[in-house]
Amino acid sequence: MVDAFAGYGVATVHEAQARTGVLAVSITPIYAGARIAGSAVTVSVPPADNWMIHVAVEQCHEGDVLVVAPTSPSDAGYFGELLATALQSRGVRGLVIDAGCRDVAELQHMGFPVWSKCVSPFGTVKETLGSVNVGVVCAGQWIEPGDVIVADDDGVVVVPRRKAADVLDACRVRDEKEAVSRKRYQAGELSLDVHGMREQLAASGLTYVDQPPDA
Amino acid sequence: MVDAFAGYGVATVHEAQARTGVLAVSITPIYAGARIAGSAVTVSVPPADNWMIHVAVEQCHEGDVLVVAPTSPSDAGYFGELLATALQSRGVRGLVIDAGCRDVAELQHMGFPVWSKCVSPFGTVKETLGSVNVGVVCAGQWIEPGDVIVADDDGVVVVPRRKAADVLDACRVRDEKEAVSRKRYQAGELSLDVHGMREQLAASGLTYVDQPPDA
Amino acid sequence: MVDAFAGYGVATVHEAQARTGVLAVSITPIYAGARIAGSAVTVSVPPADNWMIHVAVEQCHEGDVLVVAPTSPSDAGYFGELLATALQSRGVRGLVIDAGCRDVAELQHMGFPVWSKCVSPFGTVKETLGSVNVGVVCAGQWIEPGDVIVADDDGVVVVPRRKAADVLDACRVRDEKEAVSRKRYQAGELSLDVHGMREQLAASGLTYVDQPPDA
Amino acid sequence: MVDAFAGYGVATVHEAQARTGVLAVSITPIYAGARIAGSAVTVSVPPADNWMIHVAVEQCHEGDVLVVAPTSPSDAGYFGELLATALQSRGVRGLVIDAGCRDVAELQHMGFPVWSKCVSPFGTVKETLGSVNVGVVCAGQWIEPGDVIVADDDGVVVVPRRKAADVLDACRVRDEKEAVSRKRYQAGELSLDVHGMREQLAASGLTYVDQPPDA
Amino acid sequence: MVDAFAGYGVATVHEAQARTGVLAVSITPIYAGARIAGSAVTVSVPPADNWMIHVAVEQCHEGDVLVVAPTSPSDAGYFGELLATALQSRGVRGLVIDAGCRDVAELQHMGFPVWSKCVSPFGTVKETLGSVNVGVVCAGQWIEPGDVIVADDDGVVVVPRRKAADVLDACRVRDEKEAVSRKRYQAGELSLDVHGMREQLAASGLTYVDQPPDA
Amino acid sequence: MVDAFAGYGVATVHEAQARTGVLAVSITPIYAGARIAGSAVTVSVPPADNWMIHVAVEQCHEGDVLVVAPTSPSDAGYFGELLATALQSRGVRGLVIDAGCRDVAELQHMGFPVWSKCVSPFGTVKETLGSVNVGVVCAGQWIEPGDVIVADDDGVVVVPRRKAADVLDACRVRDEKEAVSRKRYQAGELSLDVHGMREQLAASGLTYVDQPPDA
Repeated sequence: MVDAFAGYGVATVHEAQARTGVLAVSITPIYAGARIAGSAVTVSVPPADNWMIHVAVEQCHEGDVLVVAPTSPSDAGYFGELLATALQSRGVRGLVIDAGCRDVAELQHMGFPVWSKCVSPFGTVKETLGSVNVGVVCAGQWIEPGDVIVADDDGVVVVPRRKAADVLDACRVRDEKEAVSRKRYQAGELSLDVHGMREQLAASGLTYVDQPPDA
Repeated sequence: MVDAFAGYGVATVHEAQARTGVLAVSITPIYAGARIAGSAVTVSVPPADNWMIHVAVEQCHEGDVLVVAPTSPSDAGYFGELLATALQSRGVRGLVIDAGCRDVAELQHMGFPVWSKCVSPFGTVKETLGSVNVGVVCAGQWIEPGDVIVADDDGVVVVPRRKAADVLDACRVRDEKEAVSRKRYQAGELSLDVHGMREQLAASGLTYVDQPPDA
Repeated sequence: MVDAFAGYGVATVHEAQARTGVLAVSITPIYAGARIAGSAVTVSVPPADNWMIHVAVEQCHEGDVLVVAPTSPSDAGYFGELLATALQSRGVRGLVIDAGCRDVAELQHMGFPVWSKCVSPFGTVKETLGSVNVGVVCAGQWIEPGDVIVADDDGVVVVPRRKAADVLDACRVRDEKEAVSRKRYQAGELSLDVHGMREQLAASGLTYVDQPPDA
Repeated sequence: MVDAFAGYGVATVHEAQARTGVLAVSITPIYAGARIAGSAVTVSVPPADNWMIHVAVEQCHEGDVLVVAPTSPSDAGYFGELLATALQSRGVRGLVIDAGCRDVAELQHMGFPVWSKCVSPFGTVKETLGSVNVGVVCAGQWIEPGDVIVADDDGVVVVPRRKAADVLDACRVRDEKEAVSRKRYQAGELSLDVHGMREQLAASGLTYVDQPPDA
Repeated sequence: MVDAFAGYGVATVHEAQARTGVLAVSITPIYAGARIAGSAVTVSVPPADNWMIHVAVEQCHEGDVLVVAPTSPSDAGYFGELLATALQSRGVRGLVIDAGCRDVAELQHMGFPVWSKCVSPFGTVKETLGSVNVGVVCAGQWIEPGDVIVADDDGVVVVPRRKAADVLDACRVRDEKEAVSRKRYQAGELSLDVHGMREQLAASGLTYVDQPPDA
Repeated sequence: MVDAFAGYGVATVHEAQARTGVLAVSITPIYAGARIAGSAVTVSVPPADNWMIHVAVEQCHEGDVLVVAPTSPSDAGYFGELLATALQSRGVRGLVIDAGCRDVAELQHMGFPVWSKCVSPFGTVKETLGSVNVGVVCAGQWIEPGDVIVADDDGVVVVPRRKAADVLDACRVRDEKEAVSRKRYQAGELSLDVHGMREQLAASGLTYVDQPPDA
């Protein structure tokens, strides 16, 4: 079922679950064109310390997405092509990290997509423990292990595991509706008419005034 | 006349009107390579509410650029491919928005350029009125309906409608001057000499000191 | 020797000098794919005034990288294709600037790479002196003329001139080590085993708990 | 009439003109406890250049508020106790500046209130002209000379000159309404009842669910 | 038990629960000198819409702290002295909000403390539902209804309800330890000796070098 | 000589050394009213690790100011009242830190002033070495051990040790000049006249236009 989410964009999934679950807009893809869906393996890491990501690799399986959140804001580059090599060999689909990522040219070359807060060559230490597969707050969203992560050029959204089936249904419905609207818009119809907004607008007090000819 | 502005870059237009009119650098293109000029249709919207954009579509015509400014800062994704489809079918050339935009992959595919504050899948509501074709402050600039908007990879600049003809003339002059400078620079001449800066620099107190051989 | 640094990425160089020298992550390349190494020519400029960059051009030689830092934060576009033309004709490899850059489409077309704080069409004046080839703080790092600058898609790092030979040696060592790790990761080995982390983790108190089957 | 605005807080004035006119929250008072209303004298200044403020002093009169906006973002300290001395001797009530201010201890001692983007000791030059008493965008609002500026601990709001009388009436109405609400809230009544919100909430779909006893 | 937390500072509570639970540093008190502890009543609100806060007031009781988080970043002023009057009459101890607050002078006068992201006169609408007493992410922390909120001049920390007793014990232990250290520091002893750090530092490779007399 | 600097404000010292040396405006005092001057003891610390501050305490003497800079941005609370107690007992005058500080109520009570990037209860670890009394970049300025640090409500400025005597002389000169200007401004004279700016303004092209009576 997780795979089916990749057929919908992040915006659609977010709307389909009542406009919830979007990570902060500070999280952006390191290269354009990737779209993934997967099951979250979560990691809580200390600032500028990536030891726990090494521990997390072993917990990852085919179809997972790694989700990393520092306990205090960090610009450090926690992740690069060596860790990506290890994850890719296990079938992991990508990384979402509320911190920095490095080796971005190599990662694009490998086809391992990352959504991060920044690109940063600054290295991390391996000194302090953290936690794997616990609930974490990542870029403003609460993510539990096994939740569905969908990510594309628009950003990242999390779908709570227990709601995934319902959200997927809602995505289908929304997608079909939008296909109808799209055709009508292409034909020159206005959303004011397609969605019957004119009455509501008038009821809310919208008025039209003529512009003076020289305004 | 508006079309002629597209032949000049944003930087040139800005310089040609005495270094005014540039929108804040937080406004960036969602994809590289677009350059447009058009007549502003302005929209003042509440935070996270895009109802008034739907109203604005009807006011847009061939050659327009839609300019959207929220009344309080918002990261919401006010605009996506459906609204772009509607605008494109009316001949609108692009969107400038001091807020979020989504469906960026689709927008690039459609060739509908957007300059926005962020990419954001976060959806908006349709609850509260705003205003169309009034003066708005967008990313630090005052823009009135009918002003000329020029946008490219460097950013966005607004030219007040009543000054457009003069600014266009000044663009031509500046462009020709720069062509001359470019050739001389390519030939290895220095701007210090091309623009006769050495005397002014000396008058301002510039001194040259020898560097010690090992410094 | 400076040229040899271009064979290593910024992240490697940074690690090879004990995780020092990385410029702030706010400095990003204006286009992807460039990697350069060169000798720093430094410029301290007033906010929104690029006069001193014109003076600096004359001090630049084949293989240099221009490094520009304002004395107070500025979003102005200090640099564009005309100055790039002048620098390119002198063999300068690129620009690092803790301020704005413009004409980014032209710069990419010319193949003149820039790492900057922002893209900005806002023009500068030529009114106030600054300094060329003095120590400057650029994006959080102290840079002296003649230091080695390495820049790629990950960012920018400075190597103090007197340490350059040692750092280059350390880059080679690190690069070879990573090649070995990479192969083992590709073969499915874990960093926990490749680097013998399991004992240290246990000593630090790491424990593994079984997840309930439905968690 | 301008003076009467000082009797109302910034929040009230903003609500009384249909939630418009508030400057960005980045503009804060340098000390707590000041509340002023006055007529705007506007100044457009280059980044890090305060020459035009000196020109503006001569244009200020009793009851004015000086409003300063740079043409590009600047952290420089454009204003200190010497300029405040000059303004205070002319009866100016305060300064609103979308840039830096310095000598804040002295300004508090003098009782000259300033709302600024930052406190900054960084000095400015006197090299480049700007404009006095033209329309300016200051912290996201369009302000024309003669507009009413109201500022207090909550921030700053601008009231367009031609709307001032109507807005003042609306302030009175709002203030009286709030006095009634305040009394009822103090007596323990709920806004749900005071403003009859329960029906609208139910109509919008609000539901109440019992919390499990241990939740 | 909740009350006992107010005897410890936020920093102590945070350390006592293994350095977890601190809200982002962007959340600051609107006035200095308040220190509170209480039980969380949580509210998830749409951007720039405070309708649900009115609903939440009814769910608040003596000893509670209201916690408000928008679903998308907002600078709006969701809360002022009227809502504070209603909450104060119900015995609520304060507000934590990852958005704006207004009427700060009145709130200080009333003695109703608020920790907010900004001070903002910008008003909100009452159009869209949200949720009361659900888990929310507020300023980077996951907060559930009934969790303990502790707030002082240093910021805000959340203690999960089920851990409260243990954390309180750990606070006592830590507090007593610090009292001992404080006395020894006051007497001129060094933490290097008080905590026996010299050996660990040496083991980590710390070396001391003589400074040249003129350095 | 260092003590004499405390008689001048940060703004004056900065101007007296040709507008150099000011730390970024993100560094602010944790309480108002302190003004100090002292000799820098510098500390370079890893992100979120304050071990090296403990080492630095031993290197501090009467009249010093501790200057702490992380090698990568950190919001952690590196410093609180226990370390302040240790420093105060050694005669240290204050702390400047490009990171977080906690226990701000206690620090104000003790009269130990701190200039920091933020207030943060988030704790640090003691795992990784750094350096004491080396050159550091702190908030955008290069600071060497023994440099003079001056800090007040306006911010922080560094004076290189070798220039201290000259800068102090320049402070005296500037201070006397300003006293004369202040008197003339208090008497209602304009800076345009006091400093003879009218001719330069006219030469730069300043023109005065009559405002229409109703503008």
